[in-house]
Amino acid sequence: MAQQRTEIAELGEFGLIDRLHAGIKTTLPDTITGIGDDAAVLDLGEEYGLLTTDLLLENVHFDLAFYPLKHLGYKAVAVNVSDIAAMNGIPRQITVSLGLSNRFSVEAIEELYAGINAACTDFRVDLVGGDTSASRSGLLISVSVFGKVSKEKIAYRHSAKVSDLLCVSGDLGAAYLGLQVLEREKQVYLADPSMQPELDGKEYVIQRQLRPEARMDVVYELDEAGVVPTAMIDVSDGLASDLLHLCRRSEVGAVVFEENLPIDDQTYLVATELNIGPITAAMNGGEDYELLFTIRQADYDKIKNSPNISVIGFITEPANGVVLHTKGGNRHPITAQGWTPLSS
Amino acid sequence: MAQQRTEIAELGEFGLIDRLHAGIKTTLPDTITGIGDDAAVLDLGEEYGLLTTDLLLENVHFDLAFYPLKHLGYKAVAVNVSDIAAMNGIPRQITVSLGLSNRFSVEAIEELYAGINAACTDFRVDLVGGDTSASRSGLLISVSVFGKVSKEKIAYRHSAKVSDLLCVSGDLGAAYLGLQVLEREKQVYLADPSMQPELDGKEYVIQRQLRPEARMDVVYELDEAGVVPTAMIDVSDGLASDLLHLCRRSEVGAVVFEENLPIDDQTYLVATELNIGPITAAMNGGEDYELLFTIRQADYDKIKNSPNISVIGFITEPANGVVLHTKGGNRHPITAQGWTPLSS
Repeated sequence: MAQQRTEIAELGEFGLIDRLHAGIKTTLPDTITGIGDDAAVLDLGEEYGLLTTDLLLENVHFDLAFYPLKHLGYKAVAVNVSDIAAMNGIPRQITVSLGLSNRFSVEAIEELYAGINAACTDFRVDLVGGDTSASRSGLLISVSVFGKVSKEKIAYRHSAKVSDLLCVSGDLGAAYLGLQVLEREKQVYLADPSMQPELDGKEYVIQRQLRPEARMDVVYELDEAGVVPTAMIDVSDGLASDLLHLCRRSEVGAVVFEENLPIDDQTYLVATELNIGPITAAMNGGEDYELLFTIRQADYDKIKNSPNISVIGFITEPANGVVLHTKGGNRHPITAQGWTPLSS
Repeated sequence: MAQQRTEIAELGEFGLIDRLHAGIKTTLPDTITGIGDDAAVLDLGEEYGLLTTDLLLENVHFDLAFYPLKHLGYKAVAVNVSDIAAMNGIPRQITVSLGLSNRFSVEAIEELYAGINAACTDFRVDLVGGDTSASRSGLLISVSVFGKVSKEKIAYRHSAKVSDLLCVSGDLGAAYLGLQVLEREKQVYLADPSMQPELDGKEYVIQRQLRPEARMDVVYELDEAGVVPTAMIDVSDGLASDLLHLCRRSEVGAVVFEENLPIDDQTYLVATELNIGPITAAMNGGEDYELLFTIRQADYDKIKNSPNISVIGFITEPANGVVLHTKGGNRHPITAQGWTPLSS
């Protein structure tokens, strides 16, 4: 009897994950939410616990040709903390597992740990465990984070309501452009190792790629302003993709105003130099690790003067779809690939 | 200025981990214990939370030439649950991250998940999250477990007291012998693929290697008997190594009676066939995932009739060291390599 063999490529990564997760049911009364949000939600009695994990693999998620190990350690923690922030939670403890090949010296691994420790200090988390192993194949970093959130303040993906305001922290698109700059310089270097990298005027976009921050400052700011987001997600795959996740889970539509998208001046300049549309970078780029969230209209006055928060649109009935309202007054459907210009 | 380069091999794996962990301090009031026990201990208010993680890498921790994927999925969960059991805790939720190369079909990954789900059912835990990624280099599995334990029932490594009884669950040495059998059969197969494996009479030792169980049944049994271990650790590296950990952390010595070591009949038979000392396998073998624990002498009557628990010795003053009392009446120091026969 021939055994069936389906290639992963036939399903794609998301298709595979959907298929594997289809058979998973949670059964415990203290499991509030399992797979499907930025973090799992556990009932601890007085408050909720949050649990999330991320895996970073060499030559899949990072290229050590241009990624300093210290920054990599910092990023491994920050991207996990960002998932806790996206639940409006406070990270508390992390575990870090490493797979290390002999290519790394002890000093190199200490650099990685220096970045991990710096992130623990910045985000006020304790490193409480992990596992260190030899690896036959480069570096891998697996981080898990435990966090907490009071039951009244938790923000899910699935609870945005029609007429809520759509907000995003910081600015968008820079991390993606930073990666393009670094990839280009790597090619230049490989072609001629005597060339000096040309990074002047690109410091911000490179920093956004190499040393992303989790926006815990925005979580604290919202708390101080007395605002609980009605829904939240972190922008890791790009604004378009993550907005679609939020709208699908909340069963709503949304309008985003192009002119309200927060894009840094340097992002515009580098985008022009690289011949990439700055709106495409912002919608589609990914790895910004900003927070995308919705608030009640009644809370607008509490955040309108914040330099860290932009109101970029609002939530609509699902039938309206998820659309970008351009500066020219046109409406384009937003797709997972970014946004689709109308054919005329 | 020349940069220093220290090879990992100069420090060894344990030396590297010690050096990396030396700089790590915990700062949060709700971090009760960080690195250094089977799981981290977090203060949740009414009770303690437990957090632990383990990494399994292909060709480092498992060989897919003889490891069925379903068993591997089960083992990945069981070894993590075992760390929660070793704190006398109850596992609740797990996350599973996978790195997958294209070599694996969707059906193969579903086999792996079938094992993961079977373990979740057996150990009553919910799978609540994870991360799935392409891998350039074989299979990796990173599991994290969150568990709970009441504050009165937690068992650390560091709290064994002089005159406590030393106990171990189940039997020892079989998993190591199972691995030796599987390695031997692999070599036979590689030399002549038409050879049939000779596994008759070796089912138990092979099962102990391929499908280890976490001894949650013993945690529940102790609870029902009204016994809280004074200290506990799971036997993952071998009885000798893990007993030394427990004694060092508790600042005590111990005597183990050779004649009390629980060794299955099949373990004796296979050890003889492979020309491996059964006591060496039991002391030194590893991967048994049994529980090694200490109890007050006053609790002896509560466990003496249990078929799952053997009293193998007792705790002494630290000056007496950690020794094996042989059937012949000799005393040998136990070292991390197992035990050292005296030179005369």
